[in-house]
Amino acid sequence: MSTEPSTKKARTHPPYELLYWPTLPGRGEFIRLVFEATSTSYTDVSNESKDGINDVLAVKAEDSTGDSDGNPPAFAPPALRIPGEGKGGKNLLLYQTPSILSYLGDKLGFAGEDEAERHWIMSHALTALDLNNETHDTHHPVSVAKYYEDQKEPALLKATDFREARLPKFFGFFERVLKGNKSGDGKYLVGGKLSYADTTLWQVLDGLLFAFPKEMAVRKKEFPTLFDTFYPSVKEQKGIKEYLASKRRLPYGNGVFRHYEELDRQ
Amino acid sequence: MSTEPSTKKARTHPPYELLYWPTLPGRGEFIRLVFEATSTSYTDVSNESKDGINDVLAVKAEDSTGDSDGNPPAFAPPALRIPGEGKGGKNLLLYQTPSILSYLGDKLGFAGEDEAERHWIMSHALTALDLNNETHDTHHPVSVAKYYEDQKEPALLKATDFREARLPKFFGFFERVLKGNKSGDGKYLVGGKLSYADTTLWQVLDGLLFAFPKEMAVRKKEFPTLFDTFYPSVKEQKGIKEYLASKRRLPYGNGVFRHYEELDRQ
Repeated sequence: MSTEPSTKKARTHPPYELLYWPTLPGRGEFIRLVFEATSTSYTDVSNESKDGINDVLAVKAEDSTGDSDGNPPAFAPPALRIPGEGKGGKNLLLYQTPSILSYLGDKLGFAGEDEAERHWIMSHALTALDLNNETHDTHHPVSVAKYYEDQKEPALLKATDFREARLPKFFGFFERVLKGNKSGDGKYLVGGKLSYADTTLWQVLDGLLFAFPKEMAVRKKEFPTLFDTFYPSVKEQKGIKEYLASKRRLPYGNGVFRHYEELDRQ
Repeated sequence: MSTEPSTKKARTHPPYELLYWPTLPGRGEFIRLVFEATSTSYTDVSNESKDGINDVLAVKAEDSTGDSDGNPPAFAPPALRIPGEGKGGKNLLLYQTPSILSYLGDKLGFAGEDEAERHWIMSHALTALDLNNETHDTHHPVSVAKYYEDQKEPALLKATDFREARLPKFFGFFERVLKGNKSGDGKYLVGGKLSYADTTLWQVLDGLLFAFPKEMAVRKKEFPTLFDTFYPSVKEQKGIKEYLASKRRLPYGNGVFRHYEELDRQ
């Protein structure tokens, strides 16, 4: 995987290290998109080195009470390691996607213009991540540790409810947020510029288009601001456009966004 | 419902208004605990006035594109309204429990001593709220809009996995966080004083003790720091102790934490 060329921004920011599972977008993708949209240099540890996965396993090890730098253990990846930014100039380690997004949003100017915008951005990103979790549960409604094939019957029930009740509820909400934000022209959820709320929602929509193509072909027409203005606009943003065309953008596989024909609209 | 006596803190803070469903603790409880633990005056709108529920319904109305103060709509309660703190001195409206907790944590000195602690507190609170969501899904694994009785079969499967795999995973994690935080003496997740991570985790543990009494009687013994030190310590904290003895603390009912004998350990 190629590394970013050194830029001014890269030199003025600490060497951010993303700790996440290799080969799939997953929840790590919400964090990658923030780096890419702000042209910030980062290391995707498990994808860029063969032994990188050991760092991921170490922070979530089920016997860890934290690391030698005073950081607590992580419940699950993704985690973000920031050399020099922790207690006493040591490494800082953060986990939980919304906490990492909020941290990076503040540092990289990707979290709005004032306190109100900052919190609306956090709230909308959390709602998009709730939709991400509900998507996961369509194929794993009973147990995250068991195979899809062993929970297929409840998955069919869950996916039906998700498609019929939850998708329109979430899409309708974001359509209204976009319409209510006059300075966003349908392109931004909050204010007049891109934020991590936008990239987070965009990623969930993109994953849903992969996982539920038949359902989404119908839903797209019901929420025109979301799908005709917002979705294509984020895709064309500086940094995002180049990223999506690069090898760093990983294909969907057996993560949150999976395509099972039987769970899609029949 | 009685209102708090005016205190110095009450007079120096804006008039916080919690917008949540009446009569049950629910997700509103995580926010109430922050106010109570910091002796901060607040209005619990739907519980303190007969028409208060209309304010809750208005912020989540499914045709709203936001209010006349420039705030976006809320996806779901709880929401927090803070007169005078929004754009141009208007009302600020926030939604999403973790976003409200983070806002209040900063304002009320209930979010740690520095940037690292602030984000660890957010991360741990998010993890406790994930456990809260998984608890909800034990009785509603297929559809939030349908009755428990109409999804009882998958609920039995989900609750079994939750009790056997998820509870020990979450409890084991928090046990390790408590052990790793040397300055907390088992009483605080981060640093040497109470934060919204502690009150949030405490509320989830308390709800689980109500919902799964047989399972918890066994699990309690496996995680002694969590249940013999942390849980009773939070309960005795200034503000919390008085609150729990007051009429403002609402009983569990048909919310996230429900007791169904068939979902508990057999």
